Amino acid sequence: MEIKGNVIVGQSGGPTAVINSSLAGVYKTAKDKGVKKIYGMRNGVEGFLKGKYVDISEHIKSDMDIELLKRTPSSFLGSCRFKLPEPVLGNETFEALFKRLNELEIGYFFYIGGNDSMDTIKKLSDYAQLIASDIKFIGIPKTIDNDLDITDHTPGYGSAAKYIASVTKEVVRDGLVYDMESVTILEIMGRNAGWLTAAAALAKGCDCEGVDLVYLPEVAFDVDKFIEKIRELQKTKKSIVVAISEGICLEDGTYVAELSSQLGNTDAFGHKILTGAGRYLANAITSKIGCKARAIEFNTLQRCAAHMVSRVDITEAFQVGGAGVTAALEGKTGQMVILKRVSSEPYMCVTDVYDVHKIANVEKKVPREWINEEGNGVTEALISYVKPLIQAELTQIIVDGLPHHIVLND
Amino acid sequence: MEIKGNVIVGQSGGPTAVINSSLAGVYKTAKDKGVKKIYGMRNGVEGFLKGKYVDISEHIKSDMDIELLKRTPSSFLGSCRFKLPEPVLGNETFEALFKRLNELEIGYFFYIGGNDSMDTIKKLSDYAQLIASDIKFIGIPKTIDNDLDITDHTPGYGSAAKYIASVTKEVVRDGLVYDMESVTILEIMGRNAGWLTAAAALAKGCDCEGVDLVYLPEVAFDVDKFIEKIRELQKTKKSIVVAISEGICLEDGTYVAELSSQLGNTDAFGHKILTGAGRYLANAITSKIGCKARAIEFNTLQRCAAHMVSRVDITEAFQVGGAGVTAALEGKTGQMVILKRVSSEPYMCVTDVYDVHKIANVEKKVPREWINEEGNGVTEALISYVKPLIQAELTQIIVDGLPHHIVLND
Repeated sequence: MEIKGNVIVGQSGGPTAVINSSLAGVYKTAKDKGVKKIYGMRNGVEGFLKGKYVDISEHIKSDMDIELLKRTPSSFLGSCRFKLPEPVLGNETFEALFKRLNELEIGYFFYIGGNDSMDTIKKLSDYAQLIASDIKFIGIPKTIDNDLDITDHTPGYGSAAKYIASVTKEVVRDGLVYDMESVTILEIMGRNAGWLTAAAALAKGCDCEGVDLVYLPEVAFDVDKFIEKIRELQKTKKSIVVAISEGICLEDGTYVAELSSQLGNTDAFGHKILTGAGRYLANAITSKIGCKARAIEFNTLQRCAAHMVSRVDITEAFQVGGAGVTAALEGKTGQMVILKRVSSEPYMCVTDVYDVHKIANVEKKVPREWINEEGNGVTEALISYVKPLIQAELTQIIVDGLPHHIVLND
Repeated sequence: MEIKGNVIVGQSGGPTAVINSSLAGVYKTAKDKGVKKIYGMRNGVEGFLKGKYVDISEHIKSDMDIELLKRTPSSFLGSCRFKLPEPVLGNETFEALFKRLNELEIGYFFYIGGNDSMDTIKKLSDYAQLIASDIKFIGIPKTIDNDLDITDHTPGYGSAAKYIASVTKEVVRDGLVYDMESVTILEIMGRNAGWLTAAAALAKGCDCEGVDLVYLPEVAFDVDKFIEKIRELQKTKKSIVVAISEGICLEDGTYVAELSSQLGNTDAFGHKILTGAGRYLANAITSKIGCKARAIEFNTLQRCAAHMVSRVDITEAFQVGGAGVTAALEGKTGQMVILKRVSSEPYMCVTDVYDVHKIANVEKKVPREWINEEGNGVTEALISYVKPLIQAELTQIIVDGLPHHIVLND
C-alpha cells in the first residue's frame, strides 16, 4: 500500500502498566511498513499544541529499547487531560493543530487513551472531514477501568486485574495470620464502573479463600445491611476481607466516601476531611461491631504496577497499536481499534476497528447479571470473562535488583 | 551428633514475605539431620499454650511443597503477639509451656520473629536454666523493620526494601506523566526506625530520578522547613516525590500523624480521625502552596509482597533457619542466629549465633551519619549497605495467572 505521509502518536489520560506497549506497537509497525518519520506528541494534544513533540526513532533505537518500552509503566511520551472544543470551521484550536500536523507532513494520527481520548479522535476526524483533510485518525484503546464500549475489553485492564488479584491473595493471607476477629476493606479504583473491584474475586482458589464480599458502584450500597452481613459472616469465620469500589454510593446517589465529610470536619488547614469509602466503613465496623478493622487503598499502584503485568494484556496492547497502523494505512479514519473475543476456552481474541463516534463518551459498566442477586459478589460469568486476561507473565528486565525502564530525555 | 528429642518451631509478630522461607529452612534442615518429629506451633506460643500445634511433615510432604512454602507470604503457622511474663520458678505460664514441650519430647525450640520474639527466647532459655531443662531455645530473626541489633540485617528487610524501591520507581514515573506541578508523599512503614523508608532512595538510577526527599523518624521533623524545601525544589522541577516514615515526629516528640487528630475531629462514630502523616503533609502542601498533592500509603503490601521478593533475602531467610537447627543440635541455647557481612563488594554474608539477652528489646536505628546533614536524605553508605540485599529474583510459581501459595488446613 502507498504511504501518504508521516505518523504521529500521542498518549492521553491516566497511566496504565501497558500503555507503552501500545506505543511500541504503533512505532514498530509503522517503521516496519516503511513510514518515514514517526513523531510522538509530548503530553498529548495539549503539549503538541505548544509545539512539543519528538522524533521517536531518536529515542527508541534498538529492539532492546522496544522491549524496555513495553515494560515501562506510565506514558513514555507524557500525558494530558485536554478536551477539544466542538469541531467547527474556523475554530482556532483545530486550525492550530492541523497547521502543525501539516508542517510535519502527517498522514496518520494515533491517540492511545480512554473515553476522553476517543472523544478527541472523533472530533479530529470530524474536523478533517469539514476541511477535506486526508489525515487518518485512529484511536488505540487504553484504560485500566475497562469501561470502553464495543471492545471486549481494554488493554491495561488485564494487568491491573492481575495485580489486584495477586495482592488480594497476599492480603487475604496477611489477614489470617492472627487468631482474632478482623475485617479488612480493600478500596479499589473505579468511580462508576466496578470492573477493577470485580477482579479481586479472582483471588479465590484452592490456595486462597478469596474475598468474602464484593461491592461495585453498579448496585446501591446500604451501610446497615453491610454491617449485618459482616456480623453474619463472623458467626463462621474470623478474618473477613471485603473488596469495594471507591465509587460505591447509597440509593440516593451519595458516595460512601462523602459520608464522613458531611460531618463538617476540617483539617488543620480548613479543608473538608475526606476519609475514603474504605476508611469510613472500617470505622463503622470498629464502632458498631467492636472488632479490629482496617482499610487498605490499592491506590496508584493499580495503574502502574509494571512489575506484575499480564502477558496476554501486554501482547494485546502491542497488537492494538499495530492494528491501528494497519487500519490507517488502509485508509480508515474516525475508528477505534477493538478487541473481539472469538472464544473464551481456549481464549482467542482478534482485532478489528469500529466507528469511534459510537464509542466515545459511552461508559461500559459491569452488567447487572454478572453481579449476584444480593449485590455483594460477582458471578461465574464475570470470572470466566476476566480470567483469560490475567494469564501468563512477561520476563522482567532487572538491573541492579530493580525492574528497568526506558525514559524520554528531551 | 546425637539428637536429643523432637523439634518445635513457631512464628510470631508481623508477617514478612519470606518468614516461611525460614520455616522451610528449619524444617528441611531438621529433617535432613534426622530429627524424628518436627512440630509447628499454631499462632506461636499463644496457640501452643492452648494445645494448638501440627506435625509439619503431614503438611509439607514434598520438595515442591518446600518451594511453595518459601514463596508463601505471611506466617504459614499463624502468628501471635504474646509477651511472656518474667521467668520465675512456679510461674503457671512457664509450667504449662514446659509441660507441653515435655509431652511432645521436645529437645529443640525455634522461634521465628522480631524483637518481641527474641524476648520470648530469652525468657524461655532463662526459665529452662532455672528448672535445669535440657531443651535448647534458638531465635530466628525476622522483621521487615530491620531493627534487630547485632545482626547485619534481618531476613524480611531485603524483600520489603526491593518492593519499596520497585514501586517507588513506578510511582515516580506515574508522577511525571502530566505536565503540571505535583507533590507525591509516600508513607512507608517504620514507627521508630527508618530502614524501610530509606529503601525508597534505591529507586534512583539512570532510568529514574528517584525521590527528592527522605524523612526518617531518627531526625526531628519540622513542617515549616519541609514546606520551604518543597517550594525551593519547585523552582527547578514539577513533579516532586517525598518518602516519609509513618513515625516521623516533631522536636517535642509529637507524631506528625497525630497533628490532625489534635483538632478534635471525630468520625461519624465519634472516634478521633487519624489521617496519617502522609495525608497531613499532602493537605499542608495543598493549603500552603496550592499545588496538587497526594499521599500514597504503601501499607500492608510492604510486608506481604511475596510476588516481589529478593532472592538474596529469601535465601538468607532459609539459611538462618538451617543455621538455627545446626546450632541447637550442637547444644547452643539462648542464642539468636545472626548474619555477619564478610564483604559488601562482592556481597558475602555468613551466619553465626549471638547471646539473645544482648539482642532482645534493643532497637537498632539508622545511624545518624547515614542520614544527610539536613535530615532529608540518606548517604551513599546507606545505599551501599542496602543494595546487596535487594538483588536477584526467585522464579515465581504461577498457577492460573496468579502466584501460588501453600496453606495450612488443619
